[in-house]
Amino acid sequence: MIEVRVPATSANMGPGFDCLGVAVKMYNRFLVEEIEEGLVFEGCDDKFKNEDNLIYVAMKKCFEKIGYSPKGLKIKIEGDIPVSRGLGSSAACVVGGIVCANELAGRVLTKKEILELAVEMEGHPDNITPALFGGMTVSIYEDNKVIYNNVSVKEGIKFCALIPEFTLSTEKARGVLPKSIDYKQGIFNIGRAALMISALNNGDFDMLKYACKDKLHEDYRAQLIENFYSIKEECQRLNCLAVFLSGAGPTIMVMLREEDKNFAENMQKFLDTLQNKWNVVELEMDNEGTVVNGVTH
Amino acid sequence: MIEVRVPATSANMGPGFDCLGVAVKMYNRFLVEEIEEGLVFEGCDDKFKNEDNLIYVAMKKCFEKIGYSPKGLKIKIEGDIPVSRGLGSSAACVVGGIVCANELAGRVLTKKEILELAVEMEGHPDNITPALFGGMTVSIYEDNKVIYNNVSVKEGIKFCALIPEFTLSTEKARGVLPKSIDYKQGIFNIGRAALMISALNNGDFDMLKYACKDKLHEDYRAQLIENFYSIKEECQRLNCLAVFLSGAGPTIMVMLREEDKNFAENMQKFLDTLQNKWNVVELEMDNEGTVVNGVTH
Repeated sequence: MIEVRVPATSANMGPGFDCLGVAVKMYNRFLVEEIEEGLVFEGCDDKFKNEDNLIYVAMKKCFEKIGYSPKGLKIKIEGDIPVSRGLGSSAACVVGGIVCANELAGRVLTKKEILELAVEMEGHPDNITPALFGGMTVSIYEDNKVIYNNVSVKEGIKFCALIPEFTLSTEKARGVLPKSIDYKQGIFNIGRAALMISALNNGDFDMLKYACKDKLHEDYRAQLIENFYSIKEECQRLNCLAVFLSGAGPTIMVMLREEDKNFAENMQKFLDTLQNKWNVVELEMDNEGTVVNGVTH
Repeated sequence: MIEVRVPATSANMGPGFDCLGVAVKMYNRFLVEEIEEGLVFEGCDDKFKNEDNLIYVAMKKCFEKIGYSPKGLKIKIEGDIPVSRGLGSSAACVVGGIVCANELAGRVLTKKEILELAVEMEGHPDNITPALFGGMTVSIYEDNKVIYNNVSVKEGIKFCALIPEFTLSTEKARGVLPKSIDYKQGIFNIGRAALMISALNNGDFDMLKYACKDKLHEDYRAQLIENFYSIKEECQRLNCLAVFLSGAGPTIMVMLREEDKNFAENMQKFLDTLQNKWNVVELEMDNEGTVVNGVTH
């Protein structure tokens, strides 16, 4: 029995469309074993108990690459990461599936090969890289190669996810994006993404309220997320360091000073006045990434 | 007599259009004193000895803000920074002029106010911020306010400027830029700018060859700089860490490992085979920024 734990991830982080991501302490656990025959699922909805299951698809992809044919498979999923909320649940399944398969086959692929296979499946590296390595990462995808770096974040911040009960598919959220942008919009995000990394590195957290702004995707996606702007405003009123759409949404992610004890409670009160149900979850950054049988991979 | 020394600066640095800049150890010195009457220039071409002189324009702007009226002015310029080469000579004049005027008037403006006045004159902060504060900086301009951060660059790199004898005006170099860009071009630069800052923070200098790429201005400006691509290729062949257009060009800036002893000589040999004359100048990063009477401002 192989047990693989993969963290939730929040991508984009304001200005860093398709390149920035951070792992947080919320996890999915995948328990797999090779059985005599068949394909058995445990711990997921009946509609996911078939060969289209993303974890299974990722495992198959990995087995194909390695050239390994398991007799049968039992896959058990214990998941805390909510689906289609912009918290990297699909990245977690892809990474989890590939790592599980790689372990079953005798740990054939290197971590770099796992990264590349996962990004090939997911299409962009912003969630995959932190899901695998932990921490906050910058990743770019060039000639089918992932180039990434772990951002050195000074101690002193934490995250807070505002998770709505409604879902938003990444496909739909990508569909509202434009094909081209104003030159100035591009420059806007470039400067802020660079400022964000520098500020996190230096611990100049007061810069984050300027740095975490975006002109590339949030305004387009806001129409798909009821109360997006009023929630952002309330976060700012409650003195968050920064607030941004988590991945393609609909979760809204907040950065807070570690010592901020009041934000979560006050924010929950505000969200409870809205029509949709929202859950406030405080989260620390995860620095371990994917863990196999209790050991950092 | 006030003596102000301002460093040359290299802006954009690949992906960081209008936001990244670095100060290098090449300087202009401005020596000013209040005289009984008139306007006297020393050390510059006759065509610059008039009220349109950028240093004088900047001084006047500063005097107006402060409400100070000098009787007359003598301005002496000792300049190593070549004009219209993409090495921040105009930023140096603007910063130098404002700081000189501020000193003559009794040091009324704060450094932040000087920064904002200078950026208001120059239109963008990428050269102004490092010229004033030194080091490598990220700056953004928002609601007439400059937000900036000093990038923590790990020790171990140096710069090398390839300076041609021909000039290129920033106006002309801005004229070839498009009004809008592909969404993908924007994302390309965002990821690379973020990666560049993170790699410099961590000392992962091998990342720079991926990080310093640009899709926003270099290809448009290359047509104005003969042999741009063949020079870049030669830099890469000679194992530079990164190579990019300095500001709006035509200078090409190279990042090297501190211990690289052969690049400059080999590059000069290559450039000597070209039709235009190019000068290779090795430069360390300047960390002092603007210095007044020998003291860091």
